[in-house]
Amino acid sequence: MSRKKLRQWKTLSRKTILDHSKFLKIESHEIELPDGEIISDWPWVILHDAALILAQREDGEFLVFRQRKYAIDGISLAPVGGMLEPNEYPLEAAKRELLEETGYKSEKWVDFGSYLVDPNSNVGTMHLFLALDAKYVTEPNSDDLEDQDLLFLNQSELEKALEAGEFKVLAWTTVVALSLRYFENRKK
Amino acid sequence: MSRKKLRQWKTLSRKTILDHSKFLKIESHEIELPDGEIISDWPWVILHDAALILAQREDGEFLVFRQRKYAIDGISLAPVGGMLEPNEYPLEAAKRELLEETGYKSEKWVDFGSYLVDPNSNVGTMHLFLALDAKYVTEPNSDDLEDQDLLFLNQSELEKALEAGEFKVLAWTTVVALSLRYFENRKK
Repeated sequence: MSRKKLRQWKTLSRKTILDHSKFLKIESHEIELPDGEIISDWPWVILHDAALILAQREDGEFLVFRQRKYAIDGISLAPVGGMLEPNEYPLEAAKRELLEETGYKSEKWVDFGSYLVDPNSNVGTMHLFLALDAKYVTEPNSDDLEDQDLLFLNQSELEKALEAGEFKVLAWTTVVALSLRYFENRKK
Repeated sequence: MSRKKLRQWKTLSRKTILDHSKFLKIESHEIELPDGEIISDWPWVILHDAALILAQREDGEFLVFRQRKYAIDGISLAPVGGMLEPNEYPLEAAKRELLEETGYKSEKWVDFGSYLVDPNSNVGTMHLFLALDAKYVTEPNSDDLEDQDLLFLNQSELEKALEAGEFKVLAWTTVVALSLRYFENRKK
């Protein structure tokens, strides 16, 4: 196998071209390519970083929301999740969101890693977790604007929902697929 | 289980607030919530829709790029993929990208479905595919700006790379995880 030297692009300058809110900022970057070519207006999107958590109770049932969100066509299933607060560690955000949204708490966390949303223009980073042996400890206290139902699915129901495309958002499908792989691998 | 009526939000009006390029437009939406509350400046991002393809050759090896992209920290592994052209069907885009980027062609496609990137602000839709029994038919003809190497990984190498977080972009990890689940399920 030939291994090319993969050369990094240089950021020469960056400026904010839209400061919509704490939820969205757009920058334009001036970039120099390895061959010296300059791109003067590369778009850079800062939307948000989020933690996504698939939580499983001690009895094996998974905590899954049935909800609408503004950009989703129809109703979707969803794991627990939410935006990171400023300076918050991903695992800290995951624990906070699980407790706030469901009232459950877990002491056994599997960290699937952190994934960039867009390879060219950033958008944000998704931190994916599985929370095992979750226990109900308090009333949930969600600040979500949307109506939602909390469902409890067994593994077979979760697999069927994944395969039917009922988790309509990319990061939601990712954390469910990685969790099911985790359980498969544990069996081996 | 109680089933709440999950009510849809209404879009009252929408306007473009940033028309950066064919790669990025930002809208602001005026929205009415089910309780009558109005949100006047909901952000809506139009980045792009893309097709992602994990391709496997007849000998079982997977086609994987080793590459840099501007927003990625360091080097990442990546499946084949690219933006949909205007009015292009996802599968059509997937076949075009596979041929252009690698020179391979497949007649056996598995469609894993289409997933929204952001549940609140859109961003775009990712169409995920597995291409089986891919055959080399022509020289690749990629218009990508970045240097990249094409690698051939066996299933065990692919699994290790996934678990090590070497696919650093969310949609890339998703299509690899769904493909590995497909092969697991086929064995059963």
